[in-house]
Amino acid sequence: MNTSPSPAPRVLAFDVFGTVVDWHGGIAREVQALRPAVDGNAFALAWRAGYQPAMRRVMSGELGWTLIDDLHRLILDGLLVQFGLQDLSEAELRHLNKAWHRLDPWPDVVRGLTRLKSRHTLCTLSNGNIGLLAGMAKRGGLPWDCILSAEVFRAYKPDPATYLGVAKVFDVAPSEVMLVAAHHDDLAAARGCGLQTAYIERPAEFGAGQPKDVSPCPANTRHASDFLALADQLGC
Amino acid sequence: MNTSPSPAPRVLAFDVFGTVVDWHGGIAREVQALRPAVDGNAFALAWRAGYQPAMRRVMSGELGWTLIDDLHRLILDGLLVQFGLQDLSEAELRHLNKAWHRLDPWPDVVRGLTRLKSRHTLCTLSNGNIGLLAGMAKRGGLPWDCILSAEVFRAYKPDPATYLGVAKVFDVAPSEVMLVAAHHDDLAAARGCGLQTAYIERPAEFGAGQPKDVSPCPANTRHASDFLALADQLGC
Repeated sequence: MNTSPSPAPRVLAFDVFGTVVDWHGGIAREVQALRPAVDGNAFALAWRAGYQPAMRRVMSGELGWTLIDDLHRLILDGLLVQFGLQDLSEAELRHLNKAWHRLDPWPDVVRGLTRLKSRHTLCTLSNGNIGLLAGMAKRGGLPWDCILSAEVFRAYKPDPATYLGVAKVFDVAPSEVMLVAAHHDDLAAARGCGLQTAYIERPAEFGAGQPKDVSPCPANTRHASDFLALADQLGC
Repeated sequence: MNTSPSPAPRVLAFDVFGTVVDWHGGIAREVQALRPAVDGNAFALAWRAGYQPAMRRVMSGELGWTLIDDLHRLILDGLLVQFGLQDLSEAELRHLNKAWHRLDPWPDVVRGLTRLKSRHTLCTLSNGNIGLLAGMAKRGGLPWDCILSAEVFRAYKPDPATYLGVAKVFDVAPSEVMLVAAHHDDLAAARGCGLQTAYIERPAEFGAGQPKDVSPCPANTRHASDFLALADQLGC
């Protein structure tokens, strides 16, 4: 972790999938509620694995601008046969696709955000679309000051337009924004744009059976086990 | 008011300047705090009067896409000599320009929104930029589920892209969205896109000295004296 003193960030921008909410647990649970025989763990991992390649198809220009809801559906349609889900009705598929709106926050999140909100402006910075993020926040009681998304900037992370876009929206310098994320690649891209960065350990992001390496990266401004620990570090 | 039964709206989208916050009182107070000799009422009316013409310059293509913060500054710069404000420093001008971020909500707003939020998704739909609306919400404790703005849609109201954009963001039919506003022209444009509409009386929008005609328009779905009365009507 960088030991030089950094000014207190005015804005904390949060990655969402994996950092704020447990996508693996939520997706596995929802598919098993529909079809108990499906391997929920394998299905969640497969659906999520299609995410980066799908966004690359958009950013390369192969697909026009596409909301994550629609990319999730595109990926889902490609998994139906493999997981024996081809008999799901259109209504069931639409419902399952919106499981990404219904993901639960990790246990520390609501208390941690509430503390952090007292001294900072809190926003999302997710590739998820605005409606997805707003539905998730309303359901989970996530106290965002503002929902920002790739949809606002018409670019997915790690495009610099997203990280710099947060600073522009709030009319602050990039160094006054801290990206909070459980993914070192996202944080590295933010750092490349001049943002401060906080890594959050989410060892169970890929499920209890696949513990994630949560080793610190010295380049990050902060490294915290969860949002409560980050609030401690930031004096909130 | 339309007496045919309308389905309960899922999303309430709120106009902000005049409907949620008292721009006249806030601007008059802030300019007089800087220069007590200025006629705060006349200054507030003049600054606001520049708003529609400035947006028309953007929508006609004469100006490129411009945030309301920047349009406010453009208009302000044109008023300095008339109001004897040409000696303000750049820092004072920047501060005054952000008075639009610091407008107070009308007295019924926070309680009304809190009640309405229990059964509806609440968002802004304002020509104000996202940073302005987020700062105002944080300062005033406005419990939005989501901040939507002309900035998200790259079009100002009354462009249909804004009203229809709300329905698209939340993946609902236009008839499942209700625009809540203190301005009949805004509501008429929303109605033209298939939204439900609620008119809110704000007789003091232009100051106590210039009471506004708040007569009902029968085409609106609802007509309410304030947000508490709207919550009563919607059973919240």
